[in-house]
Amino acid sequence: MDFNQRYLEYKTNVDEYLKRFIDETQPRTLYQPAKYVLDGGGKRIRPLLVLLSCEAVGGSIGEALHAGVAIEILHNFTLVHDDIMDHASSRRGRPTVHEKWDTNVAILAGDALLALAYRALLRTSSSRIQEISKAFTEGVVIVCEGQAYDKEFESRSRVGVEDYLVMIQKKTAAMVAVASEIGALIGNAGDRELRALRAYGESVGRAFQVQDDLLDIIADEKKLGKTIGGDLVEGKKTFLLLEALKHAKGKDKSVLLNFMKNGGIPKRRVAEFRRIYERTGALEAARSQVKNDIAAAKSQLQQLHESDARSMLSWFADMLMHRTF
Amino acid sequence: MDFNQRYLEYKTNVDEYLKRFIDETQPRTLYQPAKYVLDGGGKRIRPLLVLLSCEAVGGSIGEALHAGVAIEILHNFTLVHDDIMDHASSRRGRPTVHEKWDTNVAILAGDALLALAYRALLRTSSSRIQEISKAFTEGVVIVCEGQAYDKEFESRSRVGVEDYLVMIQKKTAAMVAVASEIGALIGNAGDRELRALRAYGESVGRAFQVQDDLLDIIADEKKLGKTIGGDLVEGKKTFLLLEALKHAKGKDKSVLLNFMKNGGIPKRRVAEFRRIYERTGALEAARSQVKNDIAAAKSQLQQLHESDARSMLSWFADMLMHRTF
Repeated sequence: MDFNQRYLEYKTNVDEYLKRFIDETQPRTLYQPAKYVLDGGGKRIRPLLVLLSCEAVGGSIGEALHAGVAIEILHNFTLVHDDIMDHASSRRGRPTVHEKWDTNVAILAGDALLALAYRALLRTSSSRIQEISKAFTEGVVIVCEGQAYDKEFESRSRVGVEDYLVMIQKKTAAMVAVASEIGALIGNAGDRELRALRAYGESVGRAFQVQDDLLDIIADEKKLGKTIGGDLVEGKKTFLLLEALKHAKGKDKSVLLNFMKNGGIPKRRVAEFRRIYERTGALEAARSQVKNDIAAAKSQLQQLHESDARSMLSWFADMLMHRTF
Repeated sequence: MDFNQRYLEYKTNVDEYLKRFIDETQPRTLYQPAKYVLDGGGKRIRPLLVLLSCEAVGGSIGEALHAGVAIEILHNFTLVHDDIMDHASSRRGRPTVHEKWDTNVAILAGDALLALAYRALLRTSSSRIQEISKAFTEGVVIVCEGQAYDKEFESRSRVGVEDYLVMIQKKTAAMVAVASEIGALIGNAGDRELRALRAYGESVGRAFQVQDDLLDIIADEKKLGKTIGGDLVEGKKTFLLLEALKHAKGKDKSVLLNFMKNGGIPKRRVAEFRRIYERTGALEAARSQVKNDIAAAKSQLQQLHESDARSMLSWFADMLMHRTF
């Protein structure tokens, strides 16, 4: 089984569904930006997890596609609103919605995307639709909590690694967990399978975010598609920074404390921070965190019967860890 | 049966549910504003319609309360985001969320309120929960469309009364219709009852909005709780303005066309516009529109069996027409 090819097939299904999803054209200040967002590409990781989790418990992916698309639309809604809050001017190589149109358009297009996500979700035929909708809804609440913590941390000079892990659990991991949970529910999973797939998603989601922090410092600029050290330039309190702060001494410590208070640094200082991350063991800690989370995710899969979908979930976790994009 | 007292009882139920609804306290930049909004009072018209529509088809209001609260929370979500877009600084006599906190907090608190609305809705026990959730979701999409048209009209110098009626149908009436529809669904209404209650809500919702436009010009400032002529000062293209434009001639017409192009006027010119509204028959047209919609709403109620709830829905439509607040 060629997992890579299968991933591309599933991704194409999702992309095509999204392309056809919005029929409406008027009012154009609503539907133009909404279509622009859904047409912007992306790795479609969350829908893939919905589809594979459904298959891994014996369900058919046909019925899971609506929910997969729903979670992808939801994810895009969060990006549109987060980009306003972060004053981000580009995303996936294109201007953000509030940049291309304006803030009002971006607020409203985001709102509509959230509603459209529910529209897709509610096309699902399942005797467990209420449970599915509840899981989805609690995911949305938690994502909002995560984003609120993220913004609070920006202006707080005391933030620990533990706070950070809670934040990314809510902002990123919870929704990835909801993706695998909902896939499992649509496949009518038993309790043990449901718990296992939820835990798998949560670990994968956290690993994905810490890996993102790592890539911001160690990746190849061309492959990453964005500037190395962007998190530092923007003053973000990442896993690396907070982990380094825990162990730094002397001058390193005062450099980091200064960052905590004053935020962003010029790009020319990124290499200096990278050396601090190396010296303090922060890079190593991040690598272990990712490795352990991926191992934990894969061990959850032992709770499921053997299947191609299960193997692919295992492959997928590894692929995320080794990604350079 | 004392309808007024019963209305107050139902309103108290809703207020108390809303007061207890949010358990969470952290992150405080999310839950403080969310609680602030839900604690801000309001007429609770939409939940009342959910409860009465459920009762009017033989359902029990206990099961409808979750959905009633859901629609009220949804309504409040739209107010928080609309207030950002309109740069409104106060609402119900208190600072708006983006004014008391900031725009980012208001965007995110609004998002969370939308998710919390679904949380309340999904507490409903009903074999028709999927239909209920779909009706709710389509309501959210339509409300977004209505708000997009409203914002588009601000910068468009050509807007007709018909455009305006489409806009308020989407921005206001659709969600009132969804309130009565969902109440009916929870009460397990038949198709005829469902259609009748939906149509009742739509007419009541439109009447409510046109009445609002009227009150902005003819109400008692103290009773209304806001400044007379506020719509004119803010440059809003209301039913009155567009209706007046249809019939105005000579100098009146050029005054109105100038408003269409340049927007808001100083408060001292409000009386002049009121006289134009009288001369052109716009005030009369608005009064007829409200009267006809209320009559249409009440005639829909004939499709239902006689009951106290049905009588109260009839009373409620009249009350909205005669309100001075």
